Amino acid sequence: MNGTKWSKTEKQIARQAYEAAYTRECAEIGKTVRKMAATASDPSGLWELHDYLTKRRREIDEKYDYRYSQLTLVFARLIYEGWLKPEDLAGISKDKLQEICRIAEFASSSQCGQ
Amino acid sequence: MNGTKWSKTEKQIARQAYEAAYTRECAEIGKTVRKMAATASDPSGLWELHDYLTKRRREIDEKYDYRYSQLTLVFARLIYEGWLKPEDLAGISKDKLQEICRIAEFASSSQCGQ
Repeated sequence: MNGTKWSKTEKQIARQAYEAAYTRECAEIGKTVRKMAATASDPSGLWELHDYLTKRRREIDEKYDYRYSQLTLVFARLIYEGWLKPEDLAGISKDKLQEICRIAEFASSSQCGQ
Repeated sequence: MNGTKWSKTEKQIARQAYEAAYTRECAEIGKTVRKMAATASDPSGLWELHDYLTKRRREIDEKYDYRYSQLTLVFARLIYEGWLKPEDLAGISKDKLQEICRIAEFASSSQCGQ
């Protein structure tokens, strides 16, 4: 996969899909944060919120890796986790999309990463 | 100050004042967190909230030190910063209260810690 070449058009599609997934996932984190902030009735609730954000920020930093050498795996993971649909990648080569979906399906069937 | 002795009654008063200041300061942090969470319209707002909580948690951890050897300075700082009033410590010895207020006033006049 490290040798996969992305055309200019594919790079545009990839960037758009990647940003959309990132925005969706962060919006979900935002929802949880607002809920936790609203119900934090004592100091320990604040520190739980901080622990949650620390954990999620670390995961996000690790997961969203836009190097082209990593993108196939990144997209497979995002599809597997539900932040992206194969349709979001419409326009990239059939080979790439099949490879991404194959990995996502494998992860799903073997429950990898769960 | 390290040799300051606290009687049983003074320890109860000190603990109550300390907890009250901690609760007040954390309540203020909670207000800011709710405001930041409500207005975070994009992912960067979430990470700013996380940075804010990281900074404040570190400050709180450093500031709230309940060792009796440190309590005079801790109370002086809490009075100086407005989280505690001298009245909250009513019942501790006049000497201790004077020492605490003297340090708080010194910090205030010299703007120490600002």
